[in-house]
Amino acid sequence: MSRLSPEALRGFATSVLTATGVPDDDAALVADSLVQADLWGHQSHGVLRLPWYVARLRSGAMTTRTEPAVLSDTGPLVLLDGRHGIGQVLTERARTTAVERARIHGVGVAGVRNSNHFGTAMYWTRRAAQEGCVAVLTTNASPAMAPWGGREKVLGTNPWSIAAPGPDGRVVAVDIANTAVARGKIYLAKNRGEPIPDTWALGPDGAPTTDPTEGVLGVILPMAGHKGYAITFLMDVLSGALTGSSVGTGVHGPYETDAPSGCGHLFLALDPDAFGDRAGYEARVRQLIDEVKSVPLAQGFDDVFYPGEV
Amino acid sequence: MSRLSPEALRGFATSVLTATGVPDDDAALVADSLVQADLWGHQSHGVLRLPWYVARLRSGAMTTRTEPAVLSDTGPLVLLDGRHGIGQVLTERARTTAVERARIHGVGVAGVRNSNHFGTAMYWTRRAAQEGCVAVLTTNASPAMAPWGGREKVLGTNPWSIAAPGPDGRVVAVDIANTAVARGKIYLAKNRGEPIPDTWALGPDGAPTTDPTEGVLGVILPMAGHKGYAITFLMDVLSGALTGSSVGTGVHGPYETDAPSGCGHLFLALDPDAFGDRAGYEARVRQLIDEVKSVPLAQGFDDVFYPGEV
Repeated sequence: MSRLSPEALRGFATSVLTATGVPDDDAALVADSLVQADLWGHQSHGVLRLPWYVARLRSGAMTTRTEPAVLSDTGPLVLLDGRHGIGQVLTERARTTAVERARIHGVGVAGVRNSNHFGTAMYWTRRAAQEGCVAVLTTNASPAMAPWGGREKVLGTNPWSIAAPGPDGRVVAVDIANTAVARGKIYLAKNRGEPIPDTWALGPDGAPTTDPTEGVLGVILPMAGHKGYAITFLMDVLSGALTGSSVGTGVHGPYETDAPSGCGHLFLALDPDAFGDRAGYEARVRQLIDEVKSVPLAQGFDDVFYPGEV
Repeated sequence: MSRLSPEALRGFATSVLTATGVPDDDAALVADSLVQADLWGHQSHGVLRLPWYVARLRSGAMTTRTEPAVLSDTGPLVLLDGRHGIGQVLTERARTTAVERARIHGVGVAGVRNSNHFGTAMYWTRRAAQEGCVAVLTTNASPAMAPWGGREKVLGTNPWSIAAPGPDGRVVAVDIANTAVARGKIYLAKNRGEPIPDTWALGPDGAPTTDPTEGVLGVILPMAGHKGYAITFLMDVLSGALTGSSVGTGVHGPYETDAPSGCGHLFLALDPDAFGDRAGYEARVRQLIDEVKSVPLAQGFDDVFYPGEV
């Protein structure tokens, strides 16, 4: 089977978006974020999503021209109203704003309300880390998880990411969805006729299940049990409640054609220079990388990777 | 069995600390943080720790008088050198500084280097939330966890907490240690002769084990597998590398009598007023609380709690 090059895929996705009325630069940014997700192996956030983007652009649920309004600006903190523009374009604006303000004040925060799906959170925090800042990005998302003890979806996976510059131009990064597992993995087990761990999902009867068919009909459980529930709740507070966006069941997903998303994001950037010497900072991150990579291996492993290495 | 009242326990702990040379107000703060941890059921962070505090104060590893120095101050961001003072006293200073700066700039950040164990992270974020700010606190800690794929402890549990004001004076809060389980739970299973889930620990041979005796001899696994490893690594970057404190195996625990801890903390406060109307913010948190508390129950549950409710 022949495979498309990333360049060709980027060009294709860009042209699909510009044909829908998205400005060239914005289309190229969205295309790059989707192709990068595919390259990282996050196919669920990759070019597969393009038809849904187009449907939402055509319906007007997401606007082709992204023209955010500045609602607050204290210097280190900026709040943007995304006015239902494209999530990637708004998050790029949040990133550049937070980094710019962090360079001046040591810390920069950019909140975004009324945004849309932005792809993979790590795409944006890594960009900030490549520019020398430690970055945290949170978002809320449409309901995908029941609260701990419940059996009905009211909270999103609410992904978040932290990335930081390391030595030699490297970046250390984490990218978390707060569910135990992506829904696609339960479908995969179903197709293969394999059982699933009982920590992945409740069946429609509200009991933990090892049957993927039951799991598909029920709800996904949070990662790490009640901890993941509590984290995702607080990520909704940071991303939605604080920014003045929608929260909980008020957030709509990228697979819905007609509903404005109402999701919100919070971008935090910290400049290591404001904490003292950058060389010392890089030496400490190097120590962490060296220490995790030099431990004896657990059974079944060939290597230890630092977070964000692969 | 008679039980001590919290007031009596607080008074006892305070007098033990003042007898060691800790100023009255500082002693009362430490005592309150330890007793509160007991009241929350976090006995491992409660008054049981007092003898270790005293041993460290006596050895000089932790100073009785906590006199931090301000190393940087940009306005919204302050960096403190804790100079090996008491963790609780330094974290209270970080909290009041971050909240004060957030009220002026919308965001306030206080980093602390050369600190000590501060008790339960949520104790401090809840205080900031009660004063009206959304708060995030991270710390690093002495090695307790192997990196994912490894079998030797180099990273701490690196606890973190987020708390936020809710409606009617309530607070929503999460408090996370990044290990799958507290070490005490493995000891408990061992004493009861019960097996442990194979996601809790590796045995000394570097393979997952269900035998608590093997688990005690091996290493605790991260929560949520590789995710917890990545999170704890990045918490060390935020708390230690960024603040100019120690990282990885350079951090020493509260059970060591003679070694300076070298742990660091990062306190972030955000003022909802800087993002627009506080009434709208509280209404959105109320919506989240109401939504999670009104879902049908999973099997085996009598109630759904919002994070921080109990």
